[in-house]
Amino acid sequence: MDRNIPTAATIESRHRAISSYIHRTPVLTSRQLNRISGAEIYFKCENFQKVGAFKARGAINAVLTLTEYELKNGVATHSSGNHGQALAWAAAQRGAVAYIVMPSTAPAVKKAAIRDYGAKVVECEPTLAARASTLHKVVEETGATFIHPFNDYRVIAGQATCARELLEDVDEHLDHVIAPVGGGGLLSGTALSVHYFSPQTEVVAGEPEGADDAYRSFKAGRLIPLENPNTIADGLLTSLGDKTFSIIQELVSGIYTVNDDEIVEAMRLIWERMKIVIEPSCAVPFAAVLKNKAIFGGKQVGVILTGGNVDLGKLPF
Amino acid sequence: MDRNIPTAATIESRHRAISSYIHRTPVLTSRQLNRISGAEIYFKCENFQKVGAFKARGAINAVLTLTEYELKNGVATHSSGNHGQALAWAAAQRGAVAYIVMPSTAPAVKKAAIRDYGAKVVECEPTLAARASTLHKVVEETGATFIHPFNDYRVIAGQATCARELLEDVDEHLDHVIAPVGGGGLLSGTALSVHYFSPQTEVVAGEPEGADDAYRSFKAGRLIPLENPNTIADGLLTSLGDKTFSIIQELVSGIYTVNDDEIVEAMRLIWERMKIVIEPSCAVPFAAVLKNKAIFGGKQVGVILTGGNVDLGKLPF
Repeated sequence: MDRNIPTAATIESRHRAISSYIHRTPVLTSRQLNRISGAEIYFKCENFQKVGAFKARGAINAVLTLTEYELKNGVATHSSGNHGQALAWAAAQRGAVAYIVMPSTAPAVKKAAIRDYGAKVVECEPTLAARASTLHKVVEETGATFIHPFNDYRVIAGQATCARELLEDVDEHLDHVIAPVGGGGLLSGTALSVHYFSPQTEVVAGEPEGADDAYRSFKAGRLIPLENPNTIADGLLTSLGDKTFSIIQELVSGIYTVNDDEIVEAMRLIWERMKIVIEPSCAVPFAAVLKNKAIFGGKQVGVILTGGNVDLGKLPF
Repeated sequence: MDRNIPTAATIESRHRAISSYIHRTPVLTSRQLNRISGAEIYFKCENFQKVGAFKARGAINAVLTLTEYELKNGVATHSSGNHGQALAWAAAQRGAVAYIVMPSTAPAVKKAAIRDYGAKVVECEPTLAARASTLHKVVEETGATFIHPFNDYRVIAGQATCARELLEDVDEHLDHVIAPVGGGGLLSGTALSVHYFSPQTEVVAGEPEGADDAYRSFKAGRLIPLENPNTIADGLLTSLGDKTFSIIQELVSGIYTVNDDEIVEAMRLIWERMKIVIEPSCAVPFAAVLKNKAIFGGKQVGVILTGGNVDLGKLPF
């Protein structure tokens, strides 16, 4: 494997480095959801994380690896979702500027949230080509450091700290840890931490049927990017990158797909029974556990709840 | 005051008695909500309590005071809300039967939840008279012990344990503790605990404008029951009882009313910023804090979040 892949020592030291910036989020259990799923589930609640999502971990870790000199020109990324907000927040922690390239069609409330952190929103046409060229231009003109949302080892190492906390905070041996997969930053980081710190535990993923590039790439053994993804889990619309795919291929045991109805049902159960707010993307792993009782029934399962940034005006209930 | 009012020693010993049945719910803080409100707020999260509401405390306390002999005939109450579910749950803890009188018009899902605990739902016409006569009949026929939703010192002592935990778990001195008021079981219990365990702290209440009998009774110095209450805070539609009113009159410093728009806005802020599910009634105290910055600004305020049982199909957003 690539020698730049974060090691156990790297994840441990980066965890120490970011720990004063992030929340050590709680691990919650629910007897009702255990009964319904037939599994013993430990929910790692990153919906309570800074900026409302695990993305804060990768973003602050990346920003903390930069020198003062590098930071003078700021950081940049493209994201209309949690990574953009996370990078804006992370840059603010070090007094640096962040340039967030967003489609002009992104909701005004998301742009306002980014600006609230003191970051600059750079609007572009809502196409992949415009996004790439706009980001390129921003980096050229400002000298800002590009922090990719997931295909970056600094980001992966940051996301890896989430599973590390889960493993530390659950006294029981976990048979499985399950995370959702979009670009694969969280899943690859989770796979690394589990590989290093609990090698008997299997890492698996949940993925929306309407954006199942990881499932298909995993089966085919080569990257098959998404075309026209369509799912309510709008945080999982991206395709894997080469770095995340290579780790996932080596260390992940299985990828389970679920449809939007199953996602909404899982989301509703978590809202109703656990009384916590999670976003649709975040319900995907629990949906996969509910759907595959033959695999997860009777097992100790760590489920990473990734985020709670949901538009209350557009709920699927 | 009435010599049957729970003493400090009673609340302490009842707290020990119920502690293995209930959750010690967390006290959460939110920098964002502190910034928005201008106060330092400590949220006592009873939305995470058994059956999703503080009502579990009073119900289990009442049930635990009964002898085996009394329990043989079961317990009974009227409630279409959290108390009914709480009493059904509490009775099940001791293997006793619970009879819950509910209007035939109550949602099927609520009846099902009660039956899930093994309790019997007794339907009646949706009028106060039918409710009273049906309950009377149930008690006559079964010999079950009636556990009033709030106007009962066993229930009040149980609800008092919530504020006691809040006071124990917050290191700072609290200037105010604020609870919502419907029938007044929680508010009178809160007032007792604060009076005994933190006498420098003021207890205040939030109440919906559309069900403001406590506000009006408090001002008038006599019980003025509600006529045609109308508010989104459907857990607060009941009027005070004589026992709760007498404690409230003596120990509560003020009652602040809020309208439904203010309640929904407070609810939205808590969902969005804290990522937790609370019911409309539960947002009333925070709405009162937001509305009265001259009183709560710069203060340390304990806010009791009472419950999270909300119909996701009927959200006000």
